[in-house]
Amino acid sequence: MRVLGISGSLRAASINSALLRATARLAPPGVTVIVFQGVGRLPLFNPDLEPQPPLQVTELRTEVAVANALLIASPEYAHGVSGTIKNALDWLVSFEPFVYKPVAVLNASPRAHHADAALRETLKTMSAVMVEAASISIPLLGANLTEDGMVRDPVVSRAIKSSLLALRDHVMRRQSQQGPTFPLP
Amino acid sequence: MRVLGISGSLRAASINSALLRATARLAPPGVTVIVFQGVGRLPLFNPDLEPQPPLQVTELRTEVAVANALLIASPEYAHGVSGTIKNALDWLVSFEPFVYKPVAVLNASPRAHHADAALRETLKTMSAVMVEAASISIPLLGANLTEDGMVRDPVVSRAIKSSLLALRDHVMRRQSQQGPTFPLP
Repeated sequence: MRVLGISGSLRAASINSALLRATARLAPPGVTVIVFQGVGRLPLFNPDLEPQPPLQVTELRTEVAVANALLIASPEYAHGVSGTIKNALDWLVSFEPFVYKPVAVLNASPRAHHADAALRETLKTMSAVMVEAASISIPLLGANLTEDGMVRDPVVSRAIKSSLLALRDHVMRRQSQQGPTFPLP
Repeated sequence: MRVLGISGSLRAASINSALLRATARLAPPGVTVIVFQGVGRLPLFNPDLEPQPPLQVTELRTEVAVANALLIASPEYAHGVSGTIKNALDWLVSFEPFVYKPVAVLNASPRAHHADAALRETLKTMSAVMVEAASISIPLLGANLTEDGMVRDPVVSRAIKSSLLALRDHVMRRQSQQGPTFPLP
């Protein structure tokens, strides 16, 4: 099972990116978490480019298509989603394989409820399947945890593992019910 | 008086961009509306670049600094702000001259209330002064109006002019009360 992690921050020391990298290291058997590296190279969304999408957009779409689920971790900027994460999602709005894709949202800053709510509203509007059991708040902001620290911290690592297990359960239940919606070639 | 128009859409046929161009043509005496052309060239926001902001960011900031007011028109994508407009705003969050800047938001699609509300929440969080009398809904979506059509249409052109007059009144009242907050060198 393949999970695609998408961070909404481009900051090198981003706690959201560190959280996704920690998640990749804590993945349970049978689950691989790939953190998408190209978010910062995506051009700004322009519907006029849709007939021939830029290479970076095709890369994102290919990764989304082959993933069994998405895991998004993104900061709140000025009581809103980051432009970076919304830009990535804007490129996925008209992309068929995104529809019914299981998506979990990790919130590293539980006080930041505006961006979390806006992100969920957008994802639902895009017909993602929100996996609520895997969408958890992890109070990292101010905890000064690095990726290593998150992996070592018993509370944080347990929270991350429980999110991934919930995501795995969801995907497996779904596959046993209906088979993969978008099988690989 | 100088008003900076910022469109949140990069589509060539964008109704929001056309609305801002029409606004520039309908400006009352003493008001100049400049539509910022560099939104699509802004890099994605990265706090790590703040010590030496990219040239395109400096261009945006300079235009914001010298403007007496901002006029934003932006589409709603998937029940959210466009990544493009939020990215432009993300670059302005830590920019001192944005604070207390009079801002009006034109909404070309009155049914699109999610993005309008999110945009206002972000602008207020950034300490902009929302000029409500100038922030109006103009039901253009589906009206198939071009820039020329907007200028010619009596209802639309009257709405645009009333927005600009309200913005001018606000700026003049403010200047008579306190003088310019950020005088040019």
